[in-house]
Amino acid sequence: MTPDDESPSRPSGPRAAGAPRPDRDDGSRAEAEAHLERRELRTGQRPGTKYVRIERPHAREFRRAPEGHIIATERVLEPRGGFALFWTRLKRLVIGSPLTTAMSVHERIPKIKALAVFSSDAISSSAYATEEILLVLTLAGAAAATSRTMLWITGAIILLLAIVATSYRQTIFAYPGGGGSYIVTRDNLGDIPALLAASSLLTDYVLTVAVSISAGVAAITSAAPGLVAFRVEMAIAFIVFMVVVNLRGVRESATIFMLPTYLFIGSMLLVFGIAAFKYVALGELPRAEAEAVPAVEGMSLFLVLRAFASGCAALTGTEAISDGVPAFKEPQAKNAATTLVWMAAILGVLFGGIGLLAHVYQILPNPDGNPTVISQVVRLTLGTNVLFYLVQAFTTLILVLAANTAFSDFPRLSFFLARDGFLPHQFSFRGDRLSFSTGIVVLGALATILVISFGAETSALIPLYAVGVFVSFTCSQSSMVKRWWTRRSPGWQRSMVINAVGAVTTGLVSIIIAATKFSHGAWMILIIIPVIIATLYAIHRHYEAVAAELVLDPQRDTLELVNTKPLVIVPLPNLHLGVLPALSFARAISDNVTAVHVTDDLEAAERLKQRWEEWGQKLPLVIIESPYRSLLPPLLAYIAARRENEPNRLVTIVLPEFVPKHWWEWILHNQTALRLKAALFFHANVVVADVPYHLKH
Amino acid sequence: MTPDDESPSRPSGPRAAGAPRPDRDDGSRAEAEAHLERRELRTGQRPGTKYVRIERPHAREFRRAPEGHIIATERVLEPRGGFALFWTRLKRLVIGSPLTTAMSVHERIPKIKALAVFSSDAISSSAYATEEILLVLTLAGAAAATSRTMLWITGAIILLLAIVATSYRQTIFAYPGGGGSYIVTRDNLGDIPALLAASSLLTDYVLTVAVSISAGVAAITSAAPGLVAFRVEMAIAFIVFMVVVNLRGVRESATIFMLPTYLFIGSMLLVFGIAAFKYVALGELPRAEAEAVPAVEGMSLFLVLRAFASGCAALTGTEAISDGVPAFKEPQAKNAATTLVWMAAILGVLFGGIGLLAHVYQILPNPDGNPTVISQVVRLTLGTNVLFYLVQAFTTLILVLAANTAFSDFPRLSFFLARDGFLPHQFSFRGDRLSFSTGIVVLGALATILVISFGAETSALIPLYAVGVFVSFTCSQSSMVKRWWTRRSPGWQRSMVINAVGAVTTGLVSIIIAATKFSHGAWMILIIIPVIIATLYAIHRHYEAVAAELVLDPQRDTLELVNTKPLVIVPLPNLHLGVLPALSFARAISDNVTAVHVTDDLEAAERLKQRWEEWGQKLPLVIIESPYRSLLPPLLAYIAARRENEPNRLVTIVLPEFVPKHWWEWILHNQTALRLKAALFFHANVVVADVPYHLKH
Repeated sequence: MTPDDESPSRPSGPRAAGAPRPDRDDGSRAEAEAHLERRELRTGQRPGTKYVRIERPHAREFRRAPEGHIIATERVLEPRGGFALFWTRLKRLVIGSPLTTAMSVHERIPKIKALAVFSSDAISSSAYATEEILLVLTLAGAAAATSRTMLWITGAIILLLAIVATSYRQTIFAYPGGGGSYIVTRDNLGDIPALLAASSLLTDYVLTVAVSISAGVAAITSAAPGLVAFRVEMAIAFIVFMVVVNLRGVRESATIFMLPTYLFIGSMLLVFGIAAFKYVALGELPRAEAEAVPAVEGMSLFLVLRAFASGCAALTGTEAISDGVPAFKEPQAKNAATTLVWMAAILGVLFGGIGLLAHVYQILPNPDGNPTVISQVVRLTLGTNVLFYLVQAFTTLILVLAANTAFSDFPRLSFFLARDGFLPHQFSFRGDRLSFSTGIVVLGALATILVISFGAETSALIPLYAVGVFVSFTCSQSSMVKRWWTRRSPGWQRSMVINAVGAVTTGLVSIIIAATKFSHGAWMILIIIPVIIATLYAIHRHYEAVAAELVLDPQRDTLELVNTKPLVIVPLPNLHLGVLPALSFARAISDNVTAVHVTDDLEAAERLKQRWEEWGQKLPLVIIESPYRSLLPPLLAYIAARRENEPNRLVTIVLPEFVPKHWWEWILHNQTALRLKAALFFHANVVVADVPYHLKH
Repeated sequence: MTPDDESPSRPSGPRAAGAPRPDRDDGSRAEAEAHLERRELRTGQRPGTKYVRIERPHAREFRRAPEGHIIATERVLEPRGGFALFWTRLKRLVIGSPLTTAMSVHERIPKIKALAVFSSDAISSSAYATEEILLVLTLAGAAAATSRTMLWITGAIILLLAIVATSYRQTIFAYPGGGGSYIVTRDNLGDIPALLAASSLLTDYVLTVAVSISAGVAAITSAAPGLVAFRVEMAIAFIVFMVVVNLRGVRESATIFMLPTYLFIGSMLLVFGIAAFKYVALGELPRAEAEAVPAVEGMSLFLVLRAFASGCAALTGTEAISDGVPAFKEPQAKNAATTLVWMAAILGVLFGGIGLLAHVYQILPNPDGNPTVISQVVRLTLGTNVLFYLVQAFTTLILVLAANTAFSDFPRLSFFLARDGFLPHQFSFRGDRLSFSTGIVVLGALATILVISFGAETSALIPLYAVGVFVSFTCSQSSMVKRWWTRRSPGWQRSMVINAVGAVTTGLVSIIIAATKFSHGAWMILIIIPVIIATLYAIHRHYEAVAAELVLDPQRDTLELVNTKPLVIVPLPNLHLGVLPALSFARAISDNVTAVHVTDDLEAAERLKQRWEEWGQKLPLVIIESPYRSLLPPLLAYIAARRENEPNRLVTIVLPEFVPKHWWEWILHNQTALRLKAALFFHANVVVADVPYHLKH
């Protein structure tokens, strides 16, 4: 062994393996990236040779883009520290891995999935709309309910559905980028009508979640009465489930919700087929046992209109597709329009079929909703067997999952509102999985409050429902009329007539619903909507005023080049190592530093002063005696006084802060610093700098 | 009018009225005060004359002390701003005006008041102790309850009271500065036994509040059954009342509590007198209607011990006086000792008298506690008349107000624990009114939790009670034994024997109570006390370790005089006026400033970069693309990278922050800054400086 073997990797010259090599500098390195490099001057083995060793220790966390900026990689998302690690892993497990913004294109969904995602709300309402009509008609006695009046009302609602769908088809083509009532109305009629549309929809989305989930829970508890005591808890559990599914992002939720929607549609079509076969082949149809129901009031136009208004719940959710055009596969508008037509057709067939069979079977609704009208239709057609229970299960599923439509729409509408400055900016941030996290969580929270307030009772919630939807329909259709009138593009007359018919019809229906349901709960909505409008508008005015205030004039608003050092005040709890970083920092940034000690114990203060002078760091120490023991007010008054006396200097408070090793130890420290910061934030125009001292214990 | 009259105060020379005069500088002006002066150089009327005008705009807020420090006056406590003004006025109204620390001497109270403040707990327990004994004895049948066993047990408890009082008398003289179990035990036996005493007492104080207030509420609801549904709300209202009264300070609470205590004592003595008169003058005494109560179990030693253990609740509160010696007027120890003897005597007379009358009248307790034993004694003596209802009212009052003893003791014990580093420092701060606000509020909160958890039911809480008190008695007496043994001061043998008898007796009683009440709830206390001990000890170890870590060596630990400017990073949301103060500040404190913009919208970032360059302030701007849309992780990673690459510079994050005009607008801004600060606080060793931009809107 020669002595040279002792260090096998020892460099024998500048070109030897393992030796530091000068990095090729291409001369165009962005300043940004250069900041992340570690440069080290090394002396080579031969006398006089020197090398600059350039390390990029953070190359895995940041890449350099060709345009000169730097790109953060997924590695920066890796948690540091115990709790963060646990939290991140839990989040990945529940919500999934993060997606890049560029992936959002792939999140677009085909028609067959889109129908399930956007139509479950509308289609599921066929499960209760017929019952709502019959419940009102029964007030005039059994004969009124089983008369042809119900068929006429059902027909009128299907016609209304056709008008609304035709109207909205035009909206989809006019607004391929997403034509929800809010966007269309804002574009054509201005802010206030747009806010009317938006707040109506926001209210109705929250109600959709509460009503659908309460109805689903009611279906479960009719099957298992032992669970009745836990209806609110079950409803909340469903809402939490919805929130999690939607935080995972739209593609997964489409997959989850596809099956129940198609199973429900398929099973209902099967029911209709069997009923038709029985009629054609066997020539006879069963009849429900007619019970004598006494008339509470006489048959009147008002009652018919109220029955019609109740049945209009069938149309809730129809606007979902026009709102969600950007989620469709290309060609977006065409696909969305086709899906809308299919949705309207399916809803019309289901609603019409159920209505027809209920009339033919002479079914009467039960005041407590048990069994439901749809379940009577299914049972009389199929008999009480496994198939019947399966259909019931599908009905329950689609009712619960209908809430998902609201979870697609509410966050999207909130995003538009936030983008336009009507809601706090948080609503416009996309989460790790590209979903609008804030909107999803807020919708879940509001629906939970509704469910708790109304004890998860569907019947109590139903009267609040549907007003909002028809108000937004009216806003949207009126906007389209204005649009055709203004633009006069080819064929505008025909289109304008279609939308005008839609606007007038839905406007009339809005008035009918509000009037006939007013005393049953719709009055709450008529109070809430103006409150929401006022709030959104106030937020908007605030943001507008701030934006105007902040406009920067490049000529006038320059950084003052006068290097006025700040006037620094360091509140001093005591003289120990914990205050050293703060004092060092204070001295580094200014030549005008004062340490201030507030006390009610003058003897201790005297000792501090003595130790301070012994320490001899030549910083002035001011002792403020506080006979009332309060710490903050004397300090704040002192700071205010210094600030007034030197108006040309920026006053900076340098706060020594303890950073404990464990987060729960935080309560043992810094309480005073925290209170001081809160007080300074709102009261004094001063800079506050926190200088940490990391405790080893 | 001459032209001179135009400005009547116009100076005609340096000595003219109203002219700025040079301030007499006594040469010894403290630097502190000089900071608060505004100096202005003025030119006099005669050519060449100049004056320094010295203003003290803050003279009313700060005075100068002869020793050189400055004194904050009450004016600094004056609120600035609408909400603060309202809050302060409300606080003054409810809690009272602030008191200076110097006033605390005057807060000391005479014996007659002290007896009321410190004894209401002990004396009020005579209202239920007899009943507790009888309730246990009734398990062996009516004959067992009305036998002389009850008298023997009552006698044993009065003997125990005499032993404890004699023991504590010695403690008061040995510890005139306040001789609670905790202090005495820590002084003689060390930390862990002291924590045993302290945690036992803390637990029992919370229970005293919950039990006394629940008992008081029960007395009210027996009179007005309609209020039963609101018992928890009423109990909470009483607790809130207690908290407010005690935040006002000890003198006022003494005045408030004096009347009920003496009315109760007086009325019970009246009852005894009338009974004695009836016996002597009329020669006969009434008898309760004897009901046949079946025996549930046979008479046994265990049952007698359990009855004794239940009756020991009479002794709770006996330690209060030794704990509160510093609150007495001078001579403190002598006054306290006298008060202790009086308290024991009164309690003994009341407890003995009630026991004797209950035996003579052959009273049996009711399982639901309605009517109570004491009310039967009073009714049989006085008859059902106004006097009877008055005595009932006094009993209710003293029961509710007995909770006040705990409100004196819990905060004081917390103060001692905080002073010794076993509880967070907040517990050692005195409020505006010299009371230990944190302890009072925490006690109120804990008692509220107990009241809610146990539905304000006294019978459910009683079994948890009294264990803690006797454990602390035992700790305290054992410590005194150790003390006499160690010091051997004159007469130590006799004193040691007294305390040894006390220690052995109370130790035995503790074991009896724990054993006989174990399955009825005392097991909870036996779990909670060790948990509290462990928590207090963990806090202590943390503070000790921190204190040791922070010791400053004046020679070694000096401020580094190398004026290393910090490396400054300014997270830049956009280029507007709101970021100007932050950028100015950054440039003023350092020559190494980088603005960083994190984005997922590269086009907007490109526009920002362009505007930044047009603005031309020559500060580098780094754009970080964040494909996962997250803002914080890339920023944190960048900060970490910069910090690692320049280990010799202190990295400072300068955050532009909006200060809205109205506090509720805060939710519309700064959400990101807040999250960033939270993340930086726990993860990065960097200075964070908030630079405010005060919004005009």
